[in-house]
Amino acid sequence: MEKTNPVLVEVTRGGAVESEHRGRALVVSSDGDRLWSTGDLDTATYPRSAIKAFQALPMAASGAIEALGLTDEELSLCCASHNGEPRHTQVANGFLAKLGLAEPAFECGTHWPMDQNALIDLAWHHHKPDARHNNCSGKHLGMLALAVHQGWDTQGYVQPEHPVQQAIRSCIEACCDTRLDDAPLSPDGCTAPTWAMPLHRLALGFARFADPSRLPELYQEGARRLYTAAVKHPFMVAGTDRYCSEVMAALGDAAFLKVGAEGVYIASLPELKLGVAIKMDSGSAPAAEVAMSAILERLGYTVPEKWRAVELRNRNDLLTGHLRAADSAFSDLSRKP
Amino acid sequence: MEKTNPVLVEVTRGGAVESEHRGRALVVSSDGDRLWSTGDLDTATYPRSAIKAFQALPMAASGAIEALGLTDEELSLCCASHNGEPRHTQVANGFLAKLGLAEPAFECGTHWPMDQNALIDLAWHHHKPDARHNNCSGKHLGMLALAVHQGWDTQGYVQPEHPVQQAIRSCIEACCDTRLDDAPLSPDGCTAPTWAMPLHRLALGFARFADPSRLPELYQEGARRLYTAAVKHPFMVAGTDRYCSEVMAALGDAAFLKVGAEGVYIASLPELKLGVAIKMDSGSAPAAEVAMSAILERLGYTVPEKWRAVELRNRNDLLTGHLRAADSAFSDLSRKP
Repeated sequence: MEKTNPVLVEVTRGGAVESEHRGRALVVSSDGDRLWSTGDLDTATYPRSAIKAFQALPMAASGAIEALGLTDEELSLCCASHNGEPRHTQVANGFLAKLGLAEPAFECGTHWPMDQNALIDLAWHHHKPDARHNNCSGKHLGMLALAVHQGWDTQGYVQPEHPVQQAIRSCIEACCDTRLDDAPLSPDGCTAPTWAMPLHRLALGFARFADPSRLPELYQEGARRLYTAAVKHPFMVAGTDRYCSEVMAALGDAAFLKVGAEGVYIASLPELKLGVAIKMDSGSAPAAEVAMSAILERLGYTVPEKWRAVELRNRNDLLTGHLRAADSAFSDLSRKP
Repeated sequence: MEKTNPVLVEVTRGGAVESEHRGRALVVSSDGDRLWSTGDLDTATYPRSAIKAFQALPMAASGAIEALGLTDEELSLCCASHNGEPRHTQVANGFLAKLGLAEPAFECGTHWPMDQNALIDLAWHHHKPDARHNNCSGKHLGMLALAVHQGWDTQGYVQPEHPVQQAIRSCIEACCDTRLDDAPLSPDGCTAPTWAMPLHRLALGFARFADPSRLPELYQEGARRLYTAAVKHPFMVAGTDRYCSEVMAALGDAAFLKVGAEGVYIASLPELKLGVAIKMDSGSAPAAEVAMSAILERLGYTVPEKWRAVELRNRNDLLTGHLRAADSAFSDLSRKP
């Protein structure tokens, strides 16, 4: 990164700024008009898990939903970075059974639940996590569902050359109107590929996701299904005490929100036909959340207080400071009349 | 923070820079000569847990060590942000008994162990954490030891006006050669006060800690005792798979290293009579560690490979990138002939 991005978020303590998070962000319409932007938007950015809706979209567009009888909860889980709470793993388990597969079919690896209470509960009951607890298990179920529906070998479905990943790559290219031939490519946390692209391409993709008529026809109905499923079941997208779930729930069906690792966040806003993409230089997810709240508020949405200026409390529950949007960073953003 | 600090650390993925961490740092001699610095050193910075040695020093200088029969392991724990592993809580427990106190005497609050394996082990055995598992419990034992030794009421020992905290404040002022009257002040994570000061004051304090002859006479012997205890028992300072413990162990008795929350790190280097202080803008501890490694290497110390360019591995243990020092950030730092 050659350019210096602006400070978007500050961490305060005892009345002083203790830390700060620089970043870049933009708001774009489904026509590609840039309503607002800040910082360097051209550097290739790995969308990480923020792109999960597009990783699920080839499956949703394939007829697999009907053929396999997938529910809205299951579709929401496909777009998730979930906490590994009991409801997440229950839904993952039912989904897996519909595919006629067992746990070893997952190629995402295993980790203890992201949610500490879920982790403690698991250990307390002498259970160990498996791939269903992986925050990406829903994404992988979507990938497996596509392979099963198309009759492809499921083995190796996370490899970039596998037809599942080729379908996802084509979908991302078409939806974000970008080419990924020379894009930086890496295994993501769960080994599925993540391709880097300029942040403005990511924002455009999610503006179109908010306004499926601007997507290639092939993907329009699938995008509507995924959007509806996610806003109907926001808990499945993340879980207890998580921004994606709580803010989506608070906004009714007005927004699809998704975090990606290393400080990425996207929003799709159908009413305004807008997409938002944020990348914090530091990779901080809490900072990206506060930046997203600042953008949503300026676009006219009411974000729960808890997620606007986030209270920082210590081990004795004393308020020590806030995570807050930097005063000037978003001042030139407003909802168009 | 008004100035733009340089990028000190980069996060790579698939050959591209994914995230970056800006920060400020300096190396100073016990005479106050600045060997090297980068970024804004004047902004008031909360040292957080990096200052723990100076929070233990009034106790170490009070005669409490001898009077209470404190061991080197217990003294090392006073300087710790520990993992809450069994050995940490065992030592904390024995220390508490020597004070004739019980667990409710702690005013630091409770949290599950910082180390995930220790947390899982605790839950697996149906135990819940108490204040002994708090990463600051050793610091609080040092504070309680001072109160007990001086015959002060232990209740309220974390309040800024309590004699324990007044003694600590005087010690920090004397050792870092700074005044804290108008300094930003906040309860730390454990409620004990943390006073902000310019980073160059923090570095000077730890240069003098490396060369106690430059400390006020009152603190000289106590500083030697704490330094020796920490480098003899580095595990107590942090724990398994932690930078402070592993790098201190690798360097023998050549360095005292201590992390503070929100991306602070300090080092005391007796051979060179140098102190180091780092503050990452983003608050990232892993980034601060990599910056510390870059500084230590350039000063002639051999840091374990694991902690120089930190490998980032995914849920399937695939190498996805590195956390590494930015090429140019440390190029003008070298050990003086």
